[in-house]
Amino acid sequence: MPREVAIIGCGMSQFGNRTDKSLMGLLKEASSRAMQHAKVSPADISALYVSTMLAGELTNQTAVASALADELTLIPAAADRIENGPASGGSAVKNAYLAVASGLFDTVLVTGGEKMREAAGDRITDLIATMTHPTAEYVNGVTLPSLAAMFTRLYMNKYGVERKHLSMVAVKNHDNALKNPYAHIHRKITLEGICLSPEAEVNNPVIADPLRLFDMCPISDGAASVVLCSAEKAKDFTDKPVLIAGVGQATDIQAVSQRPDPTTLNAVKVSSQQAFSRARLQPKDMDVVELHDAFTILEIAESEDAGFFEKGTAHKAIEQGVTSINGKIPINPSGGLKARGHPVGATGVAQVVELTWQLRGEAGERQVKDARKAFCCNFGGFGNNVVSFVFKGEN
Amino acid sequence: MPREVAIIGCGMSQFGNRTDKSLMGLLKEASSRAMQHAKVSPADISALYVSTMLAGELTNQTAVASALADELTLIPAAADRIENGPASGGSAVKNAYLAVASGLFDTVLVTGGEKMREAAGDRITDLIATMTHPTAEYVNGVTLPSLAAMFTRLYMNKYGVERKHLSMVAVKNHDNALKNPYAHIHRKITLEGICLSPEAEVNNPVIADPLRLFDMCPISDGAASVVLCSAEKAKDFTDKPVLIAGVGQATDIQAVSQRPDPTTLNAVKVSSQQAFSRARLQPKDMDVVELHDAFTILEIAESEDAGFFEKGTAHKAIEQGVTSINGKIPINPSGGLKARGHPVGATGVAQVVELTWQLRGEAGERQVKDARKAFCCNFGGFGNNVVSFVFKGEN
Repeated sequence: MPREVAIIGCGMSQFGNRTDKSLMGLLKEASSRAMQHAKVSPADISALYVSTMLAGELTNQTAVASALADELTLIPAAADRIENGPASGGSAVKNAYLAVASGLFDTVLVTGGEKMREAAGDRITDLIATMTHPTAEYVNGVTLPSLAAMFTRLYMNKYGVERKHLSMVAVKNHDNALKNPYAHIHRKITLEGICLSPEAEVNNPVIADPLRLFDMCPISDGAASVVLCSAEKAKDFTDKPVLIAGVGQATDIQAVSQRPDPTTLNAVKVSSQQAFSRARLQPKDMDVVELHDAFTILEIAESEDAGFFEKGTAHKAIEQGVTSINGKIPINPSGGLKARGHPVGATGVAQVVELTWQLRGEAGERQVKDARKAFCCNFGGFGNNVVSFVFKGEN
Repeated sequence: MPREVAIIGCGMSQFGNRTDKSLMGLLKEASSRAMQHAKVSPADISALYVSTMLAGELTNQTAVASALADELTLIPAAADRIENGPASGGSAVKNAYLAVASGLFDTVLVTGGEKMREAAGDRITDLIATMTHPTAEYVNGVTLPSLAAMFTRLYMNKYGVERKHLSMVAVKNHDNALKNPYAHIHRKITLEGICLSPEAEVNNPVIADPLRLFDMCPISDGAASVVLCSAEKAKDFTDKPVLIAGVGQATDIQAVSQRPDPTTLNAVKVSSQQAFSRARLQPKDMDVVELHDAFTILEIAESEDAGFFEKGTAHKAIEQGVTSINGKIPINPSGGLKARGHPVGATGVAQVVELTWQLRGEAGERQVKDARKAFCCNFGGFGNNVVSFVFKGEN
């Protein structure tokens, strides 16, 4: 039996346009906050996992985990960097979980980060596209926005999702981010302003039809960090440990066009089923959820394939406010990738940070009332590698 | 207690100048051989770890683990890429070990690879240097050969190592590689030819004084792969499982000049002590050893800091033939990085492949007689992240 594993602390850097710090500076900032929150000293940490997708390509630094171990004076702690596209953060948390669950490591730090804004827009779009299928997609000029646009069109045709539903996701997540001091975007938007009014055509221009500016997450700098510990020892550090009750991870066919049904995110399905089954819980038991809304359609599709709504019905739930902070199943109280921002290697860890705060009752103005159980999924590639978690608070 | 973990099969691609295959092709080649050797089918594999240092930079493909899972029809197996500089392979094996030890995964594939030769020489030297300290080393033009040269000079001055001792490492490892069909370099060299004769100045020119051409590993393409399984289930697949008896990993101060004693490889010391202590074995118990001889001096220094020789005496042992295949402590029967080659992300896995073959009695002409226990260490950065293993055969 794996040992039980808990989160004993977390922290993150301000997400946004961080011209003031290097990638290493951002990783240090988030790590220090998590260690302080967990009340651990460097000597307590026996292993470090760092998630970043593009450190080598964008910052000319490889083996960043070894470097961060030195910067944080964690030496001789073990240190590994995980790169799994946008699922890097979730993968890193999973591997840290396994390290503790195995019994070989007691207290493990996980820090994810990315510094992306200094690279020009075209270069970033190209670098992110290197995660697509090399012959079926990448060489043909496919980018993540274009894949998401095709996915959205199929979804609209099949399930009756309309532009207004996509915009509702954006409006909700911008609203939530206004209550999150760490979010990249603090800007109130309205359904009128980005969808319903004539000015919406100007305010919210088409980027990759049918997707518009406000259907896409920003390019962000930032880092996020959590400290994991065996559940047994967690009580030595905190009276509010958050149990990692279930973990799941699944891959899928890489080229979206080769999937039997391109509108089904099978890796979301399988990884969330694994996480729920290991936790002996169900989607209906969850109080708060973070999903990987790199594009607005993904929040809708993931919320269905993870089991929160019947396929093809999530857009109706959003219309009814079910996924708002005060709704029945709050999704992305942090603001999500859409408004908290998406420093790629940080995102999976940032989801865990948000849910840790929520389950400890430390989420401030965006606190979901009586949050006891939480779920997140971190989506890599265009859904060909997904990591899911179920958490239980003792708050 | 962690579950016991065994290696049930392994395989590797031909190392060398592999213009015939892409990185993905090399990873597939090695993976298929390991799966065949282990007699596992894709459905048996529940997780995949891929180690590569420079996939994004050199081949324009990120998230390669997710892609390889698809290529090998392992879906929906979990898949992660580990990047830890030249210790990527060892880190990947360690994480696969933890995945099985935790009880969450039963059968895990680990494949490491790199395709480096297509990039021009200067670019490769620069990309590899991105693992050095960004402000104390990299921006000042430090490269791995220059760091190794300075390290060698200090070592020569302190311990009386001479040029001939370095050459003896090269001669031994070239001899061993002649018996390894997968080795990059199949070329007999002699101490006379590269060191003692007047022609040696031409045959073996200075690259970074005091290091010469034959003190350095080549730039190689290649991949290597192992299949791990819980020791309990290993017997279902093979009657020759190799137990992973001990694992160690340690980091060190990144900038070599900032270490209290730059000639001591502290991460080698700590990681090997961890591995030996977990295995309840000592260096003297080992029958065969693979070390990370990216430069000849490293085989000497690592063999001391891992505990096989007193500090400052390994060069004498080499002079006496102690580390030859028929010596008391055979080191690098595979040919080592020096002659088997060094496709960076493959190397740590290739060490494990060689020792698996040795402990199963499948190493052909280079078989170490009665090999029952083995050790390797995989050296990242300039020793700031080292992964060590102790293995036990049942052969």
